[in-house]
Amino acid sequence: MSFPCVDALESRSATLRQQAAASASQSRTESSSSSGPEPSYTVGATQIFHSTSPLLLDHGGQLVEFDIAYETWGEMNADRSNVILLHTGLSASSHAHSTAANPQPGWWEKFIGPGLALDTNKYFVICTNVIGGCYGSTGPSSIDPSDGKRYATRFPLLTITDMVRAQFRLLDHLGVEKLHASVGSSMGGMQSLAAAVTFPERVGRIVSISACARSHPYSIAMRYVQRKAILNDPNWNRGYYYGQIPPHVGMKLAREIATITYRSGPEWEQRFGRRRADKDKPPALCPDFLVETYLDHAGEKFCLTYDPNSLIYVSKAMDLFDLGRENRLAIKAKRVERERALKEGGQGGYQQDACSLTLPDTPYEEQPEEHHDEFERDGLGFGGDLASGGSSYSGPGQKPPADLVAGLSVLWDHPVLVMGVASDILFPAWQQREIAEALKMAGNRNVAHYELSEEQSLFGHDTFLLDVKNVGGMVRNFLG
Amino acid sequence: MSFPCVDALESRSATLRQQAAASASQSRTESSSSSGPEPSYTVGATQIFHSTSPLLLDHGGQLVEFDIAYETWGEMNADRSNVILLHTGLSASSHAHSTAANPQPGWWEKFIGPGLALDTNKYFVICTNVIGGCYGSTGPSSIDPSDGKRYATRFPLLTITDMVRAQFRLLDHLGVEKLHASVGSSMGGMQSLAAAVTFPERVGRIVSISACARSHPYSIAMRYVQRKAILNDPNWNRGYYYGQIPPHVGMKLAREIATITYRSGPEWEQRFGRRRADKDKPPALCPDFLVETYLDHAGEKFCLTYDPNSLIYVSKAMDLFDLGRENRLAIKAKRVERERALKEGGQGGYQQDACSLTLPDTPYEEQPEEHHDEFERDGLGFGGDLASGGSSYSGPGQKPPADLVAGLSVLWDHPVLVMGVASDILFPAWQQREIAEALKMAGNRNVAHYELSEEQSLFGHDTFLLDVKNVGGMVRNFLG
Repeated sequence: MSFPCVDALESRSATLRQQAAASASQSRTESSSSSGPEPSYTVGATQIFHSTSPLLLDHGGQLVEFDIAYETWGEMNADRSNVILLHTGLSASSHAHSTAANPQPGWWEKFIGPGLALDTNKYFVICTNVIGGCYGSTGPSSIDPSDGKRYATRFPLLTITDMVRAQFRLLDHLGVEKLHASVGSSMGGMQSLAAAVTFPERVGRIVSISACARSHPYSIAMRYVQRKAILNDPNWNRGYYYGQIPPHVGMKLAREIATITYRSGPEWEQRFGRRRADKDKPPALCPDFLVETYLDHAGEKFCLTYDPNSLIYVSKAMDLFDLGRENRLAIKAKRVERERALKEGGQGGYQQDACSLTLPDTPYEEQPEEHHDEFERDGLGFGGDLASGGSSYSGPGQKPPADLVAGLSVLWDHPVLVMGVASDILFPAWQQREIAEALKMAGNRNVAHYELSEEQSLFGHDTFLLDVKNVGGMVRNFLG
Repeated sequence: MSFPCVDALESRSATLRQQAAASASQSRTESSSSSGPEPSYTVGATQIFHSTSPLLLDHGGQLVEFDIAYETWGEMNADRSNVILLHTGLSASSHAHSTAANPQPGWWEKFIGPGLALDTNKYFVICTNVIGGCYGSTGPSSIDPSDGKRYATRFPLLTITDMVRAQFRLLDHLGVEKLHASVGSSMGGMQSLAAAVTFPERVGRIVSISACARSHPYSIAMRYVQRKAILNDPNWNRGYYYGQIPPHVGMKLAREIATITYRSGPEWEQRFGRRRADKDKPPALCPDFLVETYLDHAGEKFCLTYDPNSLIYVSKAMDLFDLGRENRLAIKAKRVERERALKEGGQGGYQQDACSLTLPDTPYEEQPEEHHDEFERDGLGFGGDLASGGSSYSGPGQKPPADLVAGLSVLWDHPVLVMGVASDILFPAWQQREIAEALKMAGNRNVAHYELSEEQSLFGHDTFLLDVKNVGGMVRNFLG
């Protein structure tokens, strides 16, 4: 029996192996110290800000110097008061809109421009590539200045707030004291909130779309299996694949899994139903139903255009995102300790190896009240009693935890637009309700919260990319 | 940086390689033709029915002979009228309840017994292992009698109806003309309906829990990425891994993905929240949050106890499940043609290779009304207009398609219990509403439909394993 979808992956591995060998051979000829060709992840022209001032990271790592690649639209006014910082989703680049230098349409092409959601007649819009990514800002595929080799998995663990601190270095460089607004969707909506929480006096208005104030376990789980797909790929090689075959097989699967979370079951039911790619052929285990070929296609397009290590680091930053008070205090204490140690020339307890990816010493055990035997899924003893569960659940009809209200209380007076989509399975609508409710409980009377119903959008998480009328319209109205 | 979770997988591969080598060495000494040790997938004692009469399969394959491993509880009455056939989920075995031969608790231990949901004072309960599986019934890990070697991926593609036909061979063997009831959850709920549709005169009552009458694209997608995780594992070796290292790495990931679909986000929010396995350790990319260690544990327990090829074949059978009229007619026509050809000694157009796993010749393309450029996710041109989509969607408030009503119309007078759970993301509640509505539209006035609300259960798809009170209670009442 033949397996053409497996053949195709093996064939690509063979091609990539040849390319890597040819490139290594050329490097030797040129006596270059490079371990292979620079991956061409950066697409199109950007501006680059190079910071030579070290960036201390939340979990103790440090970037001694770093780049931020960015693009802009509109004109900055004289007092630099019309600046909007637009944050990206996980895999999106700074190319939110076409530019003179790069005429390709951007991912928010219809949302940016004269009279549009981000009105370039009024505002100067900046979009950056996040650190940790691979579109020109410093990330795992960048050269570590300490030894001239790529960071790979020597790159330190990042948080969403680290990304924001790097962005504000760029704002410092541009002489922007205060943003008119911080705007973002998905991971960008996390950054948008994190920017205001971290620099409350430097952010005027906040737009957070299809995001959250703390990642919930379902979204962590979906990103975890994506990372696992990459780690499972033998070509991942613990992150050291630059100049060799990248883990394109695992990366493709990771993107296929991710794509499942970006839309909604009902949308697929309507769009694909049970249609097969070719109903005259017998059933197949390689892509067969139309929804399978759709996923295959999404993975195929992505697997060599984004750095797998960036996916690992940036998705982990999303998992770690928690604007609750307890987490913010813990990070703050860690930073203070580390800053003091760095001044004194020490490490402040930080070791790169301490960031190693450790399994817990004991395997996962069910909670004590849940009798656990070898039949895990039968859950004997659960008995359907949910009342004894943890207290952190903030589902429909429940109040946000006090920890989150306290963590967001610094935003007690910022105008905030929070939007969610009922069909979103990755950042479910209760997470945006949670943001809005927590802000209101913190005393904020300037919170606008909208939730698009399933009748308004079945596009799930991707709605923010598609719905110019509802999403774009509300953003424009809010920004004024 | 160290990666203990990757180390652990590599270490297991090394151990399995040694075991395989030792076993092969022993086989040579014994002059055995076996390619390695029989995998010990079968857990505990079962009864075995061996059929020497060939089983023609829906998509043209044929099992010349086959085994059905099964277990029973209660006593068959004199006229054999008190038999309940209980169908399993994808990975469950026939061990639904402890037996004298195997005292381990079964997966429905609290649902079977005197006075329980399946009352063994009244009924004789049979649970079989499906063909295609690995618990003693014939599947890809079985020996092909034609050459004495394991089938591996030479095994023919299966459907849910094929599984049911094999089960009814067992009923023939036991002298059971008509079932009192066909009962099942998840894939078992598909089989339960398929049994009655295929043999309407041999099934009295039908119980279908957390199942569907046709798989929808979201569930196909979730199973597709599980299969992909296995196919991606180099040890899968196109299915020929018996006697070598099984694709335990891919299998573990497949189970982790599956586990995500078995519960619900809100349940995890309540159960795990953002708790980490060890909050005193720095963040890690290997399992770190409690939800990650939970998934890791689920994958770990499963990856060597179920045959990866069985997961591929059985999950594909679930994807192919469609009780709609068009599909039933197409399969029927194929069977008639093939039966005639077999009688005449030919192949009826069937070739094992024609069942090869083919990629479509052209990659997936968006629908014509959806302008498609290299920015797939920006969906330029979608414009939020869902009205132009396909007509097969049967979401909340919509009617089941006429094709499905026609396909189920043979069940116009069977008493049917249909149950669903609002928090189920794999078999969402609209799919059970669809079954119930389609049956009612076909004229059936004996349909009982219950939907457990999120207040009643946050356990999602797994509710059928856990909720003795609601699920068990309703089954008992229905069976009388």
